[in-house]
Amino acid sequence: MNLPQISEAISPAGIGQAMFELIADLYPICRSITGNGVRQTLKRIQQVVPIEIHEVPSGTKVFDWEVPDEWNIRDAYIKNAGGERLVDFHHSNLHVLNYSIPFRGRMGLHELKEHIFTLPEHPDWIPYRTSYYKRQWGFCMTHRQFMKLRDEEYEVCIDATLAPGSLTYGELCLPGRTTDEVLVSCHVCHPSLCNDNLSGIALAAYLARRLSEQGRRYTYRFVFIPGTIGSITWLALNRTNVARIKHGLVVACVGDSGRLTYKKSRQGNAEIDRAVQHVLKHSGSEYEVLDFVPYGYDERQYGSPGFNLPIGSLTRTPHGRYPEYHTSADNLEFVSSEALAVSLDMYQRVLDVLENNRRYRNLNPYCEPQLGKRGLYGPVGGQADRHLREMALLWVLNLSDGENSLLDIADRANLNFVHIRQAAKDLEECGLLEECQG
Amino acid sequence: MNLPQISEAISPAGIGQAMFELIADLYPICRSITGNGVRQTLKRIQQVVPIEIHEVPSGTKVFDWEVPDEWNIRDAYIKNAGGERLVDFHHSNLHVLNYSIPFRGRMGLHELKEHIFTLPEHPDWIPYRTSYYKRQWGFCMTHRQFMKLRDEEYEVCIDATLAPGSLTYGELCLPGRTTDEVLVSCHVCHPSLCNDNLSGIALAAYLARRLSEQGRRYTYRFVFIPGTIGSITWLALNRTNVARIKHGLVVACVGDSGRLTYKKSRQGNAEIDRAVQHVLKHSGSEYEVLDFVPYGYDERQYGSPGFNLPIGSLTRTPHGRYPEYHTSADNLEFVSSEALAVSLDMYQRVLDVLENNRRYRNLNPYCEPQLGKRGLYGPVGGQADRHLREMALLWVLNLSDGENSLLDIADRANLNFVHIRQAAKDLEECGLLEECQG
Amino acid sequence: MNLPQISEAISPAGIGQAMFELIADLYPICRSITGNGVRQTLKRIQQVVPIEIHEVPSGTKVFDWEVPDEWNIRDAYIKNAGGERLVDFHHSNLHVLNYSIPFRGRMGLHELKEHIFTLPEHPDWIPYRTSYYKRQWGFCMTHRQFMKLRDEEYEVCIDATLAPGSLTYGELCLPGRTTDEVLVSCHVCHPSLCNDNLSGIALAAYLARRLSEQGRRYTYRFVFIPGTIGSITWLALNRTNVARIKHGLVVACVGDSGRLTYKKSRQGNAEIDRAVQHVLKHSGSEYEVLDFVPYGYDERQYGSPGFNLPIGSLTRTPHGRYPEYHTSADNLEFVSSEALAVSLDMYQRVLDVLENNRRYRNLNPYCEPQLGKRGLYGPVGGQADRHLREMALLWVLNLSDGENSLLDIADRANLNFVHIRQAAKDLEECGLLEECQG
Repeated sequence: MNLPQISEAISPAGIGQAMFELIADLYPICRSITGNGVRQTLKRIQQVVPIEIHEVPSGTKVFDWEVPDEWNIRDAYIKNAGGERLVDFHHSNLHVLNYSIPFRGRMGLHELKEHIFTLPEHPDWIPYRTSYYKRQWGFCMTHRQFMKLRDEEYEVCIDATLAPGSLTYGELCLPGRTTDEVLVSCHVCHPSLCNDNLSGIALAAYLARRLSEQGRRYTYRFVFIPGTIGSITWLALNRTNVARIKHGLVVACVGDSGRLTYKKSRQGNAEIDRAVQHVLKHSGSEYEVLDFVPYGYDERQYGSPGFNLPIGSLTRTPHGRYPEYHTSADNLEFVSSEALAVSLDMYQRVLDVLENNRRYRNLNPYCEPQLGKRGLYGPVGGQADRHLREMALLWVLNLSDGENSLLDIADRANLNFVHIRQAAKDLEECGLLEECQG
Repeated sequence: MNLPQISEAISPAGIGQAMFELIADLYPICRSITGNGVRQTLKRIQQVVPIEIHEVPSGTKVFDWEVPDEWNIRDAYIKNAGGERLVDFHHSNLHVLNYSIPFRGRMGLHELKEHIFTLPEHPDWIPYRTSYYKRQWGFCMTHRQFMKLRDEEYEVCIDATLAPGSLTYGELCLPGRTTDEVLVSCHVCHPSLCNDNLSGIALAAYLARRLSEQGRRYTYRFVFIPGTIGSITWLALNRTNVARIKHGLVVACVGDSGRLTYKKSRQGNAEIDRAVQHVLKHSGSEYEVLDFVPYGYDERQYGSPGFNLPIGSLTRTPHGRYPEYHTSADNLEFVSSEALAVSLDMYQRVLDVLENNRRYRNLNPYCEPQLGKRGLYGPVGGQADRHLREMALLWVLNLSDGENSLLDIADRANLNFVHIRQAAKDLEECGLLEECQG
Repeated sequence: MNLPQISEAISPAGIGQAMFELIADLYPICRSITGNGVRQTLKRIQQVVPIEIHEVPSGTKVFDWEVPDEWNIRDAYIKNAGGERLVDFHHSNLHVLNYSIPFRGRMGLHELKEHIFTLPEHPDWIPYRTSYYKRQWGFCMTHRQFMKLRDEEYEVCIDATLAPGSLTYGELCLPGRTTDEVLVSCHVCHPSLCNDNLSGIALAAYLARRLSEQGRRYTYRFVFIPGTIGSITWLALNRTNVARIKHGLVVACVGDSGRLTYKKSRQGNAEIDRAVQHVLKHSGSEYEVLDFVPYGYDERQYGSPGFNLPIGSLTRTPHGRYPEYHTSADNLEFVSSEALAVSLDMYQRVLDVLENNRRYRNLNPYCEPQLGKRGLYGPVGGQADRHLREMALLWVLNLSDGENSLLDIADRANLNFVHIRQAAKDLEECGLLEECQG
């Protein structure tokens, strides 16, 4: 696989900025669950990582669902009697009820009101609304705009098409030393909304880029899909392949300033659940862990009882818990390169645990081995470091009976996985430990 | 089975009153573990539900015990030297040590005192005392009465008989669609004491009446038995039948104003234990849950290791925890129709869980089904109701993998069983769910 | 086995004093992991119990280790230019770095300082330091002494030998009715330090003496060994015998005034872990329970994955948690006969649980037996005692289904093991209970 050449290397410090720039580029595009907005988005992602773009025709049966007609929009407005555009799609694509049917007409305020959505409690924000499966048209506007509407005749236009086409998604597979897979999934169906969902797209893209540059134990599969119908479609097309998925994460809402939040997989105590909780616990920052509920993002589909995949979701503030959620206030100011970079770092730490989590067997299981004669004991680093290092060595030796994984050991020892992993490496090098197969 | 005709229907509002009236009718009767008081009591219960009355002869071996001689009493008094009845059985049947042997005699205060029981800490209350297996006679009186006794000669009379006869109990079986049984047991051996045990009798009788008027999945067996020797006798006579008992409750102390208290079955995590705790948790009222201890009411016998039946006990303030317990202060003022009605309602909710707790299989287990096209999604009821309804649907779909019962799902979702049950019904009706057999 | 005759019986009140006197006798001896100090120590212990003394030659391979050369010391000092002994081994054997190589020489302060250890934060205490496996010499002194050293020439002498010899340890086996063993292990390698380790030696010696005077279900094995290399040596020599060890405790730090602290075995929920926690819970005193960590005393070796023996450690303040630890302040004033006696009593209670913990089968499992006709119910002792006794009887009957041990029952009933044990004895005597075999 040849990655596109990028002249300047992205430094760890610069990666948050790069993620933010990707978000800024994608922000103006009007995305939906189908249509050209998704295609444009995936093409821009290809500048970061070489994802493949797939098209699934409208009408394709996917489990209990069907790929819908493709929606594309060029313009939309409400003009007052004086011909002035009071509401204009080109100012914000949130103004149009997403998936509105094409419409042109003239009507009074009374009739028009039936098609208007506002947020009275946030009078300066435009709400984001969709109507994918009920055929209707509508506009979203600030409540302040709405209150100014007078009783006159309005000209309404939604210059859109809703016609057979296809559902578009992106996929990238980074092969590893094994065919066991880690799935990273994000949704690409929201229009001008930054935290939900552009932050997830940016994190997934740059996480893929990072992983593409290093050796991999696991095969990594990244999917950039429209929410719900997209994951259902992808699962329907890959039904037999999903058995390879050993761990996974749904990425979303990773750019805001809130604390990291992990929603467990349906299994609840899968390795991914334990890995994320370990990393969060040792992150030094506040975090929250939520039990699985069959509501939220595409973990709903991955965690349906027929699949029951070990896929959780690592976010910052979860969907619906911040007032800006699904409004025009989820904009470029709501996300920051710093928050994005920290989120990416946390994902990398989680994958680092998965990549390095193995079981070992202590080859000297009767009493402790004499660490001193192997140079593993004593004057290396400061006093505190030395004690930490010794404890990590003793824990790995004590619990490496072929049953406990390094993550089990790290959790029981209450030590950071990176120290336990290093201890295992040191012990393996001097022949005191061997990796368990299988 | 033909229920006796009752002209006026008992309305939900009136049922507490009906229970209270039953208690008031039974209050004056002098009951014990055998004798005519129990027979009279059971006859009055037959005016509510058609229980069968059983007689077990004295001397019958029942496990390690033997049915004792039958005790009946007509009169009892202590007269002073002036012939005045200072203590009179006809004022309160608590005045006589329950199961006193017949006695007539004259004696001084010193000798009489050996046979008198009082409660110095509650000088106006008469204690309730028994001596079923040690042959003795005695009187109970208020401490205030006792302090007034002068050193004179007293005439003492206990006009009772203790002779071969039988132990009497009542039983009602309401057949259901299955032969699996739910046992509801209450004791009928206490004389003029309202909360312990008349409230339990009243609840059991009216619960049976309610159940007799509806369709039943389970067969319900109600037993009205003297405590300890009664349950031991019943278990001895029904030893092979008890395997049919899948759930059960011992009813007692359900008329006072205290909070509801559940004492778990010996098994501790039986379906009845989980059902009661679910109902109490969602009742909106304070409640308490206690672990099983081999002390208390007849759950001691049902929970002996040879039987180990899943039978708990749902009460209000447990026995021994209120000062009025086993005294004349456990009278008609100590119980209320309101408390009785609420207790009955709680029992009904528990049985409703048992009746409707099943396991289902999601017939569309791969990804969520499209609820919208089946009219299960969207504008039904208010916004909050709608969200609750959707969550219930999603939880039932997600966890109906043949393993989880509806109660499991309700507990994991932290939703009221009635919502989960309704969701299952709706999903079954549109073919998305099928009940698991066996 | 003939115990040495001791003219005066050691009364329970006097046993703390006897333990303290043993500590006082052993205090001046300079012990290390090998050498005559250990031999002298074991000889003094033989005045309490007839332990056997074993010698293991230097160079013997013991798992990953080798028995080191034997160290003996006669004298050591630092003289100033005036010939005055500033530091003198005969004042405190802590002054010498334990296992120092022999050395004689003259040097200035600058060079001397490289070989001196002090505790600046406790300027009047001498630290205890060792260098078993790195060949070096050194002195420990108070920081106040150290600060007074002037820049002059010093004469340094360590009159020691480090040469092939042997490692010495003591062992006592008290045979029981079964060959299943309880191991009690303490280390004997510390010089003039009272809590760590003389208190452990004293407790083990007097516990052995007590056990030798009573009937025993278990065989008890006491080992008095140098830390780490001693337990490794003992395990290497007894590799096949350790399968007999069913329970064990490592004794140390039992003479200070701190609360009792139990460090669980590696297994974490072994019978010894539950027995100690039961006794501590019912002791009426504050205590602490710690999870196993592969650091500490010889439980590290017993709990290595190849052995994984159910051996915990019951101490007062754990090693390293009191500032006097491994300093000259861990002296005779730091331990007390009262603390020692209470610690011994706690060990005895634990062993009493192990000795009497059995499973029984209720021979009358259907309903409760009639306790009254067997004299087990009613007027014995006061009201509170009577209730406790009845509850113990009912719990033992209820849970003796062949699955639960008396300790299981005591824990579930939240009653002291001694009451549960008595109830089982009473029930067994009247034929209601029989012991389960195997």
